[in-house]
Amino acid sequence: MKTLLIISHPDIIESRSQQYFLNSIKNFEGITVHHLESAYPDGNIDVSEEQKLLRQHDRILFQFPFYWYSSPPLLKHWQDVVLEDGFAYGTRGNALAGKEFGLIMMIGVHEKEYQAGGEELYTISELTRPFQAMAYKTGMKYLRPFSIFQFAYLEEEQKMKMLVQYWQKLTMENDDSLASRERWLIKQLENISTSEKNPKGVNVVDFAIGIMEENRDTMDDLKIVLDQMYG
Amino acid sequence: MKTLLIISHPDIIESRSQQYFLNSIKNFEGITVHHLESAYPDGNIDVSEEQKLLRQHDRILFQFPFYWYSSPPLLKHWQDVVLEDGFAYGTRGNALAGKEFGLIMMIGVHEKEYQAGGEELYTISELTRPFQAMAYKTGMKYLRPFSIFQFAYLEEEQKMKMLVQYWQKLTMENDDSLASRERWLIKQLENISTSEKNPKGVNVVDFAIGIMEENRDTMDDLKIVLDQMYG
Repeated sequence: MKTLLIISHPDIIESRSQQYFLNSIKNFEGITVHHLESAYPDGNIDVSEEQKLLRQHDRILFQFPFYWYSSPPLLKHWQDVVLEDGFAYGTRGNALAGKEFGLIMMIGVHEKEYQAGGEELYTISELTRPFQAMAYKTGMKYLRPFSIFQFAYLEEEQKMKMLVQYWQKLTMENDDSLASRERWLIKQLENISTSEKNPKGVNVVDFAIGIMEENRDTMDDLKIVLDQMYG
Repeated sequence: MKTLLIISHPDIIESRSQQYFLNSIKNFEGITVHHLESAYPDGNIDVSEEQKLLRQHDRILFQFPFYWYSSPPLLKHWQDVVLEDGFAYGTRGNALAGKEFGLIMMIGVHEKEYQAGGEELYTISELTRPFQAMAYKTGMKYLRPFSIFQFAYLEEEQKMKMLVQYWQKLTMENDDSLASRERWLIKQLENISTSEKNPKGVNVVDFAIGIMEENRDTMDDLKIVLDQMYG
């Protein structure tokens, strides 16, 4: 699976959360990182180049800071000029059909405010309807969004956990069964043992232990059920 | 009441619907028309000037073509830079509190597609949640949106009707009671008799007749009820 990570951030160098996540995937294979504001500082988007990129990937992700309940302006401009009639929708416009689409959002307000009665009034699912409608119109499968709330206030361990979830959103098949997570994990461990380039490797091992324990608990439960049936 | 009409359209000269509506309000008083792409062709928004404009008006309207279920990028940029913490929200950020806020959208797809089972899947109310959340966060009263679906396919009479609704959205108090519409209408008729500059004046007179008839019907109904009670 090839993933296209389209990032929109007007000041990415100064963003600690963006840098934290991006630094962690430098050695990942199968991911194309594409920061729009760096690629097009004058805002003139190369439409045919962007459409070529989209065709070459299976999973399209938008990563951005959630300003005023939406993306920064350059990503909206990208949508308006790249997702043309005849390419993304309309007659013969099926270039994106069957691909996966997802959002990765850095959000400055606490998660609990995004609900009726909260300060932001609506849920993230409600506020991101325009992106869901876009995925629907272009025939893409909409993935669960990955929202990172108040990154700066997270403990180091929570950040690490977020990092693993981020890697999964980028590289794991869209199926969070235990079997699927095990396959993904084994692949990550193989990568560590062969390259040892990943500075966050130690956390993957911790995560591995967690999954293994969960696996063992499931097995133990099954064993108890079997014992009761045949014992 | 002073209305600030903030328009975002990347190619407003070529837009027949935008021109149709804008030409009709050239002689209107109490409306400030502010086209962002004309005011800021390089995209560098004058934040303090914009904040001053906002403070001077009671009703803030965003008018734009509904591309990919949202506004064009420059309006999003405007939101991101003008609606600052401390001005529009946050501690002492109450400059917009108590004002009215509304959307005027030109939409290329038929109205019936905006629902579950329709091609666009979601309603306009669902797709515009980000603007509703913005109004909520800044303490503005959210008005019913004015959506113009497939303007190019409308009959001349339908366009005229849209025009009157547009004028009401810009200038009429937010109350569509018969009394309120009558007051608004009398004011429009007074304007016509004094200036006679408005090329669409003839339609206002037609509209007046409609309201008068509706008024008379209501009176007739009341009369019947009264007759039954006391007759």
